[in-house]
Amino acid sequence: MSGGKGITPRAENYSQWYVDIVQKADLADYSAVRGCMVIKPHGYAMWEHMQGALDRMFKETGHVNAYFPLFIPKSFLAREAAHIEGFAKECAVVTHHRLKADPDHGIIVDPEAKLEEELIVRPTSETIIWNTYKGWIQSWRDLPLLINQWANVVRWEMRPRLFLRTAEFLWQEGHTAHATAAEAEEEALRMLGVYREFMVDWLRVPVVTGPKSESEKFAGADHTYTLEALTQDLRAIQAGTSHNLGQSFAKAFDVTFQNTEGKLEHVWATSWGVSTRMVGMLIMSHSDDQGLVAPPRVAPVQVVIVPIGRGEGLDAATAKCRELEAELKKTVWKDHPIRVKVDDRDKLSPGFKFNEWELKGACLRIELGPRDLEAGHFLLASRLGGDKKEVALADVAQAVAAGLDEMNEALFARALAHREAHTKRVDTWDEFKACFEGEGGGGFVLAHWDGTPETEARIVEETKATIRCMPQPPLDPSDEAPGKCVLTGAPSARRVVFAKSY
Amino acid sequence: MSGGKGITPRAENYSQWYVDIVQKADLADYSAVRGCMVIKPHGYAMWEHMQGALDRMFKETGHVNAYFPLFIPKSFLAREAAHIEGFAKECAVVTHHRLKADPDHGIIVDPEAKLEEELIVRPTSETIIWNTYKGWIQSWRDLPLLINQWANVVRWEMRPRLFLRTAEFLWQEGHTAHATAAEAEEEALRMLGVYREFMVDWLRVPVVTGPKSESEKFAGADHTYTLEALTQDLRAIQAGTSHNLGQSFAKAFDVTFQNTEGKLEHVWATSWGVSTRMVGMLIMSHSDDQGLVAPPRVAPVQVVIVPIGRGEGLDAATAKCRELEAELKKTVWKDHPIRVKVDDRDKLSPGFKFNEWELKGACLRIELGPRDLEAGHFLLASRLGGDKKEVALADVAQAVAAGLDEMNEALFARALAHREAHTKRVDTWDEFKACFEGEGGGGFVLAHWDGTPETEARIVEETKATIRCMPQPPLDPSDEAPGKCVLTGAPSARRVVFAKSY
Repeated sequence: MSGGKGITPRAENYSQWYVDIVQKADLADYSAVRGCMVIKPHGYAMWEHMQGALDRMFKETGHVNAYFPLFIPKSFLAREAAHIEGFAKECAVVTHHRLKADPDHGIIVDPEAKLEEELIVRPTSETIIWNTYKGWIQSWRDLPLLINQWANVVRWEMRPRLFLRTAEFLWQEGHTAHATAAEAEEEALRMLGVYREFMVDWLRVPVVTGPKSESEKFAGADHTYTLEALTQDLRAIQAGTSHNLGQSFAKAFDVTFQNTEGKLEHVWATSWGVSTRMVGMLIMSHSDDQGLVAPPRVAPVQVVIVPIGRGEGLDAATAKCRELEAELKKTVWKDHPIRVKVDDRDKLSPGFKFNEWELKGACLRIELGPRDLEAGHFLLASRLGGDKKEVALADVAQAVAAGLDEMNEALFARALAHREAHTKRVDTWDEFKACFEGEGGGGFVLAHWDGTPETEARIVEETKATIRCMPQPPLDPSDEAPGKCVLTGAPSARRVVFAKSY
Repeated sequence: MSGGKGITPRAENYSQWYVDIVQKADLADYSAVRGCMVIKPHGYAMWEHMQGALDRMFKETGHVNAYFPLFIPKSFLAREAAHIEGFAKECAVVTHHRLKADPDHGIIVDPEAKLEEELIVRPTSETIIWNTYKGWIQSWRDLPLLINQWANVVRWEMRPRLFLRTAEFLWQEGHTAHATAAEAEEEALRMLGVYREFMVDWLRVPVVTGPKSESEKFAGADHTYTLEALTQDLRAIQAGTSHNLGQSFAKAFDVTFQNTEGKLEHVWATSWGVSTRMVGMLIMSHSDDQGLVAPPRVAPVQVVIVPIGRGEGLDAATAKCRELEAELKKTVWKDHPIRVKVDDRDKLSPGFKFNEWELKGACLRIELGPRDLEAGHFLLASRLGGDKKEVALADVAQAVAAGLDEMNEALFARALAHREAHTKRVDTWDEFKACFEGEGGGGFVLAHWDGTPETEARIVEETKATIRCMPQPPLDPSDEAPGKCVLTGAPSARRVVFAKSY
């Protein structure tokens, strides 16, 4: 059943279903530039709501915004040894700064305008920022430095996928500087907490959080904390990360401060980021074969109102719809005015409109025709289905707020039930392998691991499953009890989460 | 007098004064990447307030945000003949997509990873956007398309100047598509009006608005409307532009629509933008030899509160300052909570703090010591000077709102008086030339011009003054009366504004 919208059902081809949702719900599309996407207004609106919420949360925790250059001198990337391994690979390299007209070949790159040192379009900004912080930090009085940047970044991608993996994407990157190791660790965990709160409260995704293993951590970090969601095809998706960078970047860029005792020390650092990838995660968490299901707090349209009828009856219904719209626009739900739209386009049937707004993820739909008007009510339908409700016209604000609350609760409950239904604990290698056999994702598998990179590498090789994190808080207290490695039988401190991932 | 802040006085060296304000007030700084700036938190906060206000105004006029790729294929720039002349010159060219480790030379650009077609970092997005619109527009039902983008752009600069002219800058660019020429013209003028309202109401800059001459218009536009401010050194600064692009981009990218009669027509376009350059304009309009003067609606800090005293007296004063802060944070001034900060850093004298906040442009300062506390009042000082006022503690919200109102009015009045004092009308070539002799800027000079590009070019060559615009509305109704060209004596339809410019 594709509901006439041309969406491939999940059961038939999950990858194609995802692309169909993104394209047909007008969220984003591929562009003329290989690997780069165009984020369309309907998709960008979700990103704006995410940005607004996160920006407020960052400011409430003492952070300020700033802006650093798009370009990074090539030599900067080489300064931090681990970092270069991770980032100086697939990236956009600027080599010239001028075009010119050529009589034979049209517009050409001017060979005279070659840069002395190539510039890299930032894949992440640690290097340019720590080079800048060197000039900003002298004494303990300058610390902590709590800065965030909203920006675009570029990581060349050979196999792009809309929102999840594109050459250019939008994100925020926090870069903080601290006087002690403990403060940096506290900050990395604080921001992990901010992200978790945001993803749970706003996106309704029950993320699992905790540190990454050594081999999965960020290039240059002491510890990387991650947030991992489980998609409907049972793969993990990394939704954000928060890194305790220790002193690696301060040492690479020689950023020191005079401590309260007058001694020079290297500064301690964190960085943390989430991106437009979260839009992809949302789709994979909540949407269905009928189209986008958007969590109400970030939905571009929370309520669509469709007037029904013909001639004068339609005119009267439309006028009443406008009144309902005006009332809803004045109604505050979870600190923001309700986002409502009257769809009064002519020559389109109500059924067509219902279908389209289902596809585009309006949370609630109000239908109102001449008979409803006469009876003093309207019909209220939820994107999650169920019976339409008759609601008295005077109760519109209350009924819509209740409907949004209900959907908001239902989405999280559904996503949590899905995750719980697909989280297993296994103790033998045969069981473990069986979890990840075939094409399927396999869900979250909690198993003991002996803590060595060698064992980790063997598990990845044999199953394609990676360690997503060591959940903190644990999914169950018993997961923190010691045991024996599922592959080697060597002692293990605790269970970790394995999954195939996006 | 530099007030001990090391700011070069305007009268001594205006250019250095400007750089001193930007750097010493912590607004921005040059970066390790030639021509690129770092926007520091204090400067970025002003940009955020500008963004917030403009974004609301764009949405109130029916626009939505979207995001298009950073990169433009080289061939796209060549499609629109006039556009290529204007933009395909000094730009950042991406030629490769990979770095690799080389045993002899460290990190090198991988010669195997050369792009088939070079990519240009967008200097403006008309070409990539119109290439995208081709897929979005089929019928009159798809129009108007009213889209804005917040983005970074790059135009290689040989002589960068912080905020005013940097290789990379931040801006918004609106790109709209319409069914008729009249609608496009209406849109271009509507957005000019939005910008004017914003610059007058929020930035308190009395901009002169109107169409550019043919030779000064945007590369590819039918008409360009501009907003021009007068700096304290009597030069014009272009603060924003709105373009009626006619059908040039629709033709270059073959974007047609089926009109209501079923015929295919090319679409009509506009584009319009303002940038972080506005921060530079603000400084040049309002700041003084003591530091930044920020218009209250975009000031990062509207009120700074400085507790005074020692020991227990200081503790009591600080506690009361925190109460005042809490009350002000709950007070709404012009639709936003007041932005207030208590400066309770220890070991710094009140005088040091007063000086620093004068430099950083806090609009109002509250001073409160033990004796004030006993007397039940505090002292209120304005960034614009004048006597400090004694204000009863209970009146803090009202007094601060009144103080912000007063500064808000005074700034505009002062800037308008400055512009009026330096706007001249001249009718002879000798007088005209005299206006622009020497190193000075010369102010706004309203003169008759015969309308030919040849005369315009001769005037530029002899005086360095350019036509800034044909003011609409006129600065004086008499400016729209016909006359004789100040250089050639040929008939002129009206006076136009000449100035030297940034």
